[in-house]
Amino acid sequence: MNSSESFIACARQELGPDRVITDRDDCSAYERDYFGRSGQALAVLCPKSTAETSAALRLCARYAVTVVPQSGRTGLVGASTPDDSGRQVILSLCGIDQVGHLDAANRSIHVGAGVRMSRLRQVLAPAGLWFPFDIAADPCVGGMLATNTGGSHLMRFGDVRSSVLGVEAVLADGTVVDSLKALRKDNAGFDCKQLFIGSGGGLGVITGAVLALQRRPVARVSALLLPHSHERIPELLSWLEARYGDLIISFEGLSGNAIRYAYRAFPDLPQHFEASGIPDYVVLVELASAGLFQAQSLAADVHDSVAQLVSRAAIRGALVGDEADYWALRDAVPRALMKLPRVISLDVAFARSRLTQFRVAVQQLLSTQYPGAVLADFGHFGDGGDHVTIVVPDDCPTGATRLALMRLRVAVYDLVAEYGGSFSAEHGVGPLNESAYRRYTPPTTRRVHSSIKRLLDPAQRLGRLGMT
Amino acid sequence: MNSSESFIACARQELGPDRVITDRDDCSAYERDYFGRSGQALAVLCPKSTAETSAALRLCARYAVTVVPQSGRTGLVGASTPDDSGRQVILSLCGIDQVGHLDAANRSIHVGAGVRMSRLRQVLAPAGLWFPFDIAADPCVGGMLATNTGGSHLMRFGDVRSSVLGVEAVLADGTVVDSLKALRKDNAGFDCKQLFIGSGGGLGVITGAVLALQRRPVARVSALLLPHSHERIPELLSWLEARYGDLIISFEGLSGNAIRYAYRAFPDLPQHFEASGIPDYVVLVELASAGLFQAQSLAADVHDSVAQLVSRAAIRGALVGDEADYWALRDAVPRALMKLPRVISLDVAFARSRLTQFRVAVQQLLSTQYPGAVLADFGHFGDGGDHVTIVVPDDCPTGATRLALMRLRVAVYDLVAEYGGSFSAEHGVGPLNESAYRRYTPPTTRRVHSSIKRLLDPAQRLGRLGMT
Repeated sequence: MNSSESFIACARQELGPDRVITDRDDCSAYERDYFGRSGQALAVLCPKSTAETSAALRLCARYAVTVVPQSGRTGLVGASTPDDSGRQVILSLCGIDQVGHLDAANRSIHVGAGVRMSRLRQVLAPAGLWFPFDIAADPCVGGMLATNTGGSHLMRFGDVRSSVLGVEAVLADGTVVDSLKALRKDNAGFDCKQLFIGSGGGLGVITGAVLALQRRPVARVSALLLPHSHERIPELLSWLEARYGDLIISFEGLSGNAIRYAYRAFPDLPQHFEASGIPDYVVLVELASAGLFQAQSLAADVHDSVAQLVSRAAIRGALVGDEADYWALRDAVPRALMKLPRVISLDVAFARSRLTQFRVAVQQLLSTQYPGAVLADFGHFGDGGDHVTIVVPDDCPTGATRLALMRLRVAVYDLVAEYGGSFSAEHGVGPLNESAYRRYTPPTTRRVHSSIKRLLDPAQRLGRLGMT
Repeated sequence: MNSSESFIACARQELGPDRVITDRDDCSAYERDYFGRSGQALAVLCPKSTAETSAALRLCARYAVTVVPQSGRTGLVGASTPDDSGRQVILSLCGIDQVGHLDAANRSIHVGAGVRMSRLRQVLAPAGLWFPFDIAADPCVGGMLATNTGGSHLMRFGDVRSSVLGVEAVLADGTVVDSLKALRKDNAGFDCKQLFIGSGGGLGVITGAVLALQRRPVARVSALLLPHSHERIPELLSWLEARYGDLIISFEGLSGNAIRYAYRAFPDLPQHFEASGIPDYVVLVELASAGLFQAQSLAADVHDSVAQLVSRAAIRGALVGDEADYWALRDAVPRALMKLPRVISLDVAFARSRLTQFRVAVQQLLSTQYPGAVLADFGHFGDGGDHVTIVVPDDCPTGATRLALMRLRVAVYDLVAEYGGSFSAEHGVGPLNESAYRRYTPPTTRRVHSSIKRLLDPAQRLGRLGMT
């Protein structure tokens, strides 16, 4: 037996045959992510518990095998799928899907890394509780923590890190670090769990977590606001925050171009605008309240606010009420843009005071150097996030080649850096952003990163971080 | 010159004579903390910038001097003052008190580590903004981040960690780690700043930060609620959360004993209860709202809620309205208890579902083994925090000696561990909790702690962590 065969034989013996997948067809589901990127794995290991995860990692260490931790495969940066070598092992956490103790009085729940958001939602709804992360995809808890994801409500509830009370993780050598307390505060020493949150699985594999929950709001009201210009949106947001405070849970931005692509891809979408009258930029704001407000009275107040905002010339107008339709439009945008053949799609973040300047700079770049290319961005304006999406049509003279697309990508990232932004708002680095990491991360920070990586994973066998 | 004299001479030359304090009288202010604990330092270094902090740390490294980082000296665990050896150097960050860019649209501000909370409040008020940490003392930003503090609003706004966008820190060897972005999300690699938050200054010295701000609420209403029993408080809290959601920013608990000590120490305090009628336990709840509510209508709604809660037999009654008076009582409690001669004072935290059980266990411990000792606890019920305060009167037969007090302290900490709590909710470990750290922290966690400590501070010269 060669080393690979010996590894697989050993895995079957130590973990049990049903925990080791090697059949090519069976593996392929794990080798491909949400965006269709795929590689080829030596095998997929599917532990059902923390102890089995520890055994799997010890085995991989013994055989010096590189491990790609994986749960929901909804990431954007290629970090959860193997490369093409056929030598990397996928460690799927999807089997650790136990839903543990729901402590309603503490507003917390203990869950395994493989629990999907959709399932968590079902479990929590009867208790009137909510894990307040609204994400277009249906990720698992483990991946959400490993990438420290956000979603549409980040401006109100913070990133996932802010809602994690406890973490259980397994180091590359199989050591289990148990930090699973259900405490809102615990400063009895450095907070180890922070190392694993946002580490992309590269410092340790998260197997379980205790999550802090929110009360599920009973009244939700959304409105589509039509600002006079992009640069006046911060003023609009300040006005709304002064009035509604934390009742605002989403403040999303949609460019007119993004809306047009959505209507083109999904003709059945409710049409909110005359075909000729799609605005340059639209804001989708969502308010949510506990029992004190009924949706009806909250909506009445929003109507009143809209009238005031129009009279102050902060907006041209607004649509209030059909929230399901507005969110259908919002959700259709990324799905429509994904379908286009030549698209650059970046997930970046700024101080929200700088979003307009950045956007103007991108538009200037396109008009001068890539005429024909279309900025069809959308994103979470309220937390400074922007899904910069640039569509390069077939007839774009300068953008048609792969090299031209790569150059454009770098040029936009350079602008992100120039305006003080992050080249990865929510998805980590991964193979896709490896060159951006090298280009934009200060040397001192990279040295701290690599020294922590060497400390916890000396043989550098965990994860596809892209942080080299 | 001996080594100490040579160090001081060199410090004067490299940092400037006004940055080095050695006069015994001048030093003594820095050697003593809020609680009067004191040691003796070799010198106090007072850098005015990050570059000077880096120079100071390089110098200390060269002379192999132990450094005690310090800012507001309001900690509870002795970590910010030197030991008695006269060989440790205090590094005071109070001189780095620049208030930098206030970005109103982004709701963020850049501040130096030495900026006091009171000053920050003054700077933010005109902009209608707020750093939502309400702490009895007046700490500096640097110390708040280093200890990851909380305060009365933690249940609503999270710990300080949740409100930090960027950190600048200096490692023991003088390396500056700049992570000062003003971004609500940035996952372009492991989040280095999390290492420094809550590290007690032991992994690096925080010199500056970008803080996320909240809108300052315009309407605040407080009420003193008199629950029928401690064990029914979680139900009361759930009811209030279902009605008011995030309008609840504080939910504090005060034992009747704590209230009695406050009245005894401060006879001028407004008397809310008949002398004979101080309840066993009182809840102080605070609601805060942005512009949508006026205080008057919010108070009217609270009156209505109180009537409903009384009719549901969740509370016996309530006082609504004189919030300044209620908070005067709340603030008087710790000041009164500090003055008593024999007191055990612990800052612990639990899942809030377990606070009652823990409290009953402490009361049983006292009645069976320390008759005469009085549980006079108070704390942040809403986030699971409890300031367990046990007063041992002069005539207590079993508690009068220092040894007996130490035994009682350990016995209570054992109960904290038994009920899944943390022995240090907000203040870190420090010399005061060193033995608790050894007793309650799992070996694996301690190994991770010590390996990270060795990585960032190989000579172990930074801070008085108590984590050995």
